[in-house]
Amino acid sequence: MTSSPKPLTLNPDRLFPSDPAQRAIARRLYAEVTPLPIVSPHGHTDPSWWATDAPFADATELLLVPDHYLFRMLYSQGVPLDALGIPRADGSRAAVDPRAAWRLFAERFHLFRGTPSSMWLDHVFAKVFGLRVRLGADTADHYYDAITEALQTAAFRPRALFERFGIEVIATTESPLDPLAHHQAIRDSGWSGRVVTAYRPDPVIDPEHEGFAAALERFGEITGENVYDWDGYLRAHRQRRGFFAGMGATSTDHGHPTCATADLPAPQARALFTRIATGEFTPADAELFRAQMLTEMAAMSLDDGLVMQIHPGCFRNHNRALFERHGRDKGADIPLRTDYVHALKPLLDRFGNEPGFRLILFTLDESTYARELAPLAGHWPCLFLGPAWWFHDAPEGMWRFREQTLASAGFYNTVGFNDDTRAFLSIPARHDVARRVDCAVLAKLVAEHRLEEDDAAEVAADLAYHLPKRAYQL
Amino acid sequence: MTSSPKPLTLNPDRLFPSDPAQRAIARRLYAEVTPLPIVSPHGHTDPSWWATDAPFADATELLLVPDHYLFRMLYSQGVPLDALGIPRADGSRAAVDPRAAWRLFAERFHLFRGTPSSMWLDHVFAKVFGLRVRLGADTADHYYDAITEALQTAAFRPRALFERFGIEVIATTESPLDPLAHHQAIRDSGWSGRVVTAYRPDPVIDPEHEGFAAALERFGEITGENVYDWDGYLRAHRQRRGFFAGMGATSTDHGHPTCATADLPAPQARALFTRIATGEFTPADAELFRAQMLTEMAAMSLDDGLVMQIHPGCFRNHNRALFERHGRDKGADIPLRTDYVHALKPLLDRFGNEPGFRLILFTLDESTYARELAPLAGHWPCLFLGPAWWFHDAPEGMWRFREQTLASAGFYNTVGFNDDTRAFLSIPARHDVARRVDCAVLAKLVAEHRLEEDDAAEVAADLAYHLPKRAYQL
Amino acid sequence: MTSSPKPLTLNPDRLFPSDPAQRAIARRLYAEVTPLPIVSPHGHTDPSWWATDAPFADATELLLVPDHYLFRMLYSQGVPLDALGIPRADGSRAAVDPRAAWRLFAERFHLFRGTPSSMWLDHVFAKVFGLRVRLGADTADHYYDAITEALQTAAFRPRALFERFGIEVIATTESPLDPLAHHQAIRDSGWSGRVVTAYRPDPVIDPEHEGFAAALERFGEITGENVYDWDGYLRAHRQRRGFFAGMGATSTDHGHPTCATADLPAPQARALFTRIATGEFTPADAELFRAQMLTEMAAMSLDDGLVMQIHPGCFRNHNRALFERHGRDKGADIPLRTDYVHALKPLLDRFGNEPGFRLILFTLDESTYARELAPLAGHWPCLFLGPAWWFHDAPEGMWRFREQTLASAGFYNTVGFNDDTRAFLSIPARHDVARRVDCAVLAKLVAEHRLEEDDAAEVAADLAYHLPKRAYQL
Repeated sequence: MTSSPKPLTLNPDRLFPSDPAQRAIARRLYAEVTPLPIVSPHGHTDPSWWATDAPFADATELLLVPDHYLFRMLYSQGVPLDALGIPRADGSRAAVDPRAAWRLFAERFHLFRGTPSSMWLDHVFAKVFGLRVRLGADTADHYYDAITEALQTAAFRPRALFERFGIEVIATTESPLDPLAHHQAIRDSGWSGRVVTAYRPDPVIDPEHEGFAAALERFGEITGENVYDWDGYLRAHRQRRGFFAGMGATSTDHGHPTCATADLPAPQARALFTRIATGEFTPADAELFRAQMLTEMAAMSLDDGLVMQIHPGCFRNHNRALFERHGRDKGADIPLRTDYVHALKPLLDRFGNEPGFRLILFTLDESTYARELAPLAGHWPCLFLGPAWWFHDAPEGMWRFREQTLASAGFYNTVGFNDDTRAFLSIPARHDVARRVDCAVLAKLVAEHRLEEDDAAEVAADLAYHLPKRAYQL
Repeated sequence: MTSSPKPLTLNPDRLFPSDPAQRAIARRLYAEVTPLPIVSPHGHTDPSWWATDAPFADATELLLVPDHYLFRMLYSQGVPLDALGIPRADGSRAAVDPRAAWRLFAERFHLFRGTPSSMWLDHVFAKVFGLRVRLGADTADHYYDAITEALQTAAFRPRALFERFGIEVIATTESPLDPLAHHQAIRDSGWSGRVVTAYRPDPVIDPEHEGFAAALERFGEITGENVYDWDGYLRAHRQRRGFFAGMGATSTDHGHPTCATADLPAPQARALFTRIATGEFTPADAELFRAQMLTEMAAMSLDDGLVMQIHPGCFRNHNRALFERHGRDKGADIPLRTDYVHALKPLLDRFGNEPGFRLILFTLDESTYARELAPLAGHWPCLFLGPAWWFHDAPEGMWRFREQTLASAGFYNTVGFNDDTRAFLSIPARHDVARRVDCAVLAKLVAEHRLEEDDAAEVAADLAYHLPKRAYQL
Repeated sequence: MTSSPKPLTLNPDRLFPSDPAQRAIARRLYAEVTPLPIVSPHGHTDPSWWATDAPFADATELLLVPDHYLFRMLYSQGVPLDALGIPRADGSRAAVDPRAAWRLFAERFHLFRGTPSSMWLDHVFAKVFGLRVRLGADTADHYYDAITEALQTAAFRPRALFERFGIEVIATTESPLDPLAHHQAIRDSGWSGRVVTAYRPDPVIDPEHEGFAAALERFGEITGENVYDWDGYLRAHRQRRGFFAGMGATSTDHGHPTCATADLPAPQARALFTRIATGEFTPADAELFRAQMLTEMAAMSLDDGLVMQIHPGCFRNHNRALFERHGRDKGADIPLRTDYVHALKPLLDRFGNEPGFRLILFTLDESTYARELAPLAGHWPCLFLGPAWWFHDAPEGMWRFREQTLASAGFYNTVGFNDDTRAFLSIPARHDVARRVDCAVLAKLVAEHRLEEDDAAEVAADLAYHLPKRAYQL
């Protein structure tokens, strides 16, 4: 190769509008929020990182293997998951040299041009690892070596990075079956980092989850309740929610295929549960049970104060062959059109006006932002809007979220940013993107004389820091 | 309090793009439409204001109590409607000091940052009342006193404001049961202001309206027709439409939950009506009857020339407890996904090619702008698109309307602006926002060399003045 | 008339953002793609033009009569199709002076302000015909004469225009029943222009097409297969696909009302076909048969390598009276809400992971861009996204396509531009608009420091030239 690698630069004005008037305002707003710590109220990092503080293995294992944004794009262009060493459903992995996997990725990094992944990764490469050339076929080995070597040093241990990133608090997500041993170990270690859990009961609520029967049995063992009885099942939830809250949890999270809720009379709910618990249920029963359980969870939130989150509307495991080979969460999840207006009414009519109740809604169907979600959040006291989620977390998606929710929900029925990631190193990059986009949105409002700059500065700080703390009671 | 209140300014370039090239063009276009009078072809102001010309009571009664954009946002953040003195379903009101209600609002005015309400109100505060500081907790009393005092002066009587606002004509909306006494009084008074009515027959067409049976009975009394007979019922409509037209009406308006239309054979229509009139109908009957009545209304429009409007797609009274306590129109209405393509076909196949017929469509489902509404309006001779409506009347919503309808419908299958408000004082502000946004949209087209500025100036004047006059035959 | 006509200018910066930083980048990117030849992989031009190279008749016949974008807009504003000489369903045409039809159009050219038609036409007027004044009532005759005269010259013959336009290859679209005589004549002529066909089997696949029975019979005659037998019917398709491929086809195209696919067991597919072939089918049978045939076509693509395209989601012939009088494709087609996630799963589960298979998806439902299409294309190896189509091919629609597909699909799961037109003279204008918009999109990314300009230049050339060649194997 004769040409030298292309330089990697991280422009200080990135994501700000290029119009000079807007850019100047965005810079000033951003300067004020830059020092604020990171509050990460919802995500999927692994608590064992901070419990053990063991070093990360190598570039591929840290950055590529856990990131379905990356390997789904590579798969879409013909790279088999086995060639990247992505785990299989049975827990095995193809014998792949991690450097070879990294090269496959590096050679195709142009596929990510303009995507959020390339922004996040360039931020990680430049800011965290100090790399100065762009990733590509010609720099694959340089990258692999530089990153893998850095990871062996003390400064790149999980706790050191946590502190370097300025994380004030981070929430992980666990199943009710999780003993929270890592969270206990973190607490016992005396380390000052604040890592809390969140209660995600889908495995013991979704009867169509492939592991439901086993999970239910285990749920009974852990809690000592008769979870095949409706009352015992609900008591088991209350017990585990209490345990999670004791380990710092301030929220629950629910990932259902729809946002359906139900408010059945007790005898009907009990009869439905009997069909569910005995495995003799129809798909309609399963949907109704999930719907009923959202209302039951709301009822418990009124008692224990956990903030409720619903992440609905995804068709999971759309690729049958890939699911059979590689299992869940392998980049084959596709958003669905989602209704909120009819779906939420049973729960809202029961609890929607309760002063103590808070329900944070997310969506993968942007057509609901202006039509359903913002009007709902702009009326119901309990409702707040989570940020642009998953397929919509690019700068364009964040702009659409603000531009389509602002009129009816304002800024103050939203809850600031969630990074919602298991890609730990990208957390500062993701929060930085969100803050920059919010500052850009505000700068446009100021430049078009719809908001005064002093008010915009208050909003910027609220979105970056105060609203997530308040919404999640952190 | 030691800090002085923040200044309130109304920048002359507000809502124009900050790009200097676009802004300069927008200024020139806007300067040409500024002098044009206001044509308000659809809205919900109270004709008694101009009939009696009585002074408005106070700031709270004039600006807060009638404006569901405001109290729904306050309610979403935990302020009970009773604390604001919002009327209850039984007509009573909590005993609330209007100044205390105003303070609750003022303390929370930051909730409206970036929303259209804050733009409209700041315009009212600055232009109508000459206020020079921003509304907030510290200025609540100053605002309350200044506004309430002004309202006692002659210059703030309804007719004086109508003239000051440069309103050429305004349409109100009345039920067929309304005797139009206020409109008659306006005519009898010799005052020169032009206030016309519009025929809104929902109360005698929607069998699921809680007052339908009583309204139907009254419909018969007023018209002297046997309204329990299909032919008599239709004759009663024709009679009242004629009466409304005689009082200046040029349009009808229909607020149905969907846009469904039907074109039943006469015997089926008659049999359906019998079920409706006797109260022995299913929800499907009710929907079919509303659908059939849209087609019947179109048939009558062919005869009497009234322009037809459909405002579909809202889930009314989404909050059961709030509906029971406070009744309709209290900010708990949520848009629904809405189909137009199948829904309108029966009506269109019957009347859609008739030269004399005009049907103006609105939507709360923006996903239909580019997909359904613009293609329909860009083909059917009878169809025109009403402006961005209700939840979509913010500047962002207006931009989306233009950007998503322009390709297939052009500018000339749209009808300019409707303020659609009962907030009288905000009418100049709302028309000003609409004109500014349209000029901004045109300025972008000119700056990107897609339209010459002389042609854009013609379009700007058409959108601001000529198209609404033509579309509504005013 | 005393005023002189308005000048027509084609600004070299048209469609570029007016922000100076973005405009400068857009200019540089555009300068690099300007010299690239036109690749037109999907469209509806008439191969007889290049087979016979006969001159076009006049301005009306060339520009107005074939362009449903134009006459649908005129119809929407009250101009009868007969007044424009648009053919009727029976093949007859009203006796209309083409100059008079042109005047009707010219007088109403303001209806197209801001629409893509006006951009394309102004490009044609200025660049192809050298006109220097704007079209309007005052210049109608000047235009008609200038264009009609030019068409009689050698430089305006179809082959000369093809060469002048820099077309490297163009695809037309033919029914399986077409003998491809014009394509054969082009080949036999020794002319160097590359014109290929595409296999569009809708007439022999859609049982609800009014000519299906006759088409099926003819399909049997042409192929010599027993097309009333399932195996024979499939063999007939294979034979004609092979014949089309021999005449240069690299793709098939499928215009179904939905995107439904099916993967029936062979006995069920056979039984379904029997109902279809005998004409004893329900609407559900028809839908299921179209769905099954998409999967059958995919199976054949695996064998013969033809790239598959699906253009779904249009309600055809929405205006019954107009359809009866004037037939198909007369501007009365309206997009429909379209599902892809469930619809495509049967086909994808069968063939979606096959290395050799390529399926290009289009939509008329933009709400699926970010929610369904980009996530699908960003996962499945076979899927690629076709460009913004039909009602969405304006600059605004192209921007929405990029902004809503970029995050999940990137640039490299899209296939560049399709002009998809029968308006031959507008082809350079349409490609120019697409290139300008893509350069503008890229310029914004560069100006906001999300992409380096050297990488953006590679993307610009890929979108303009390399991706369509690769995707369509041209």
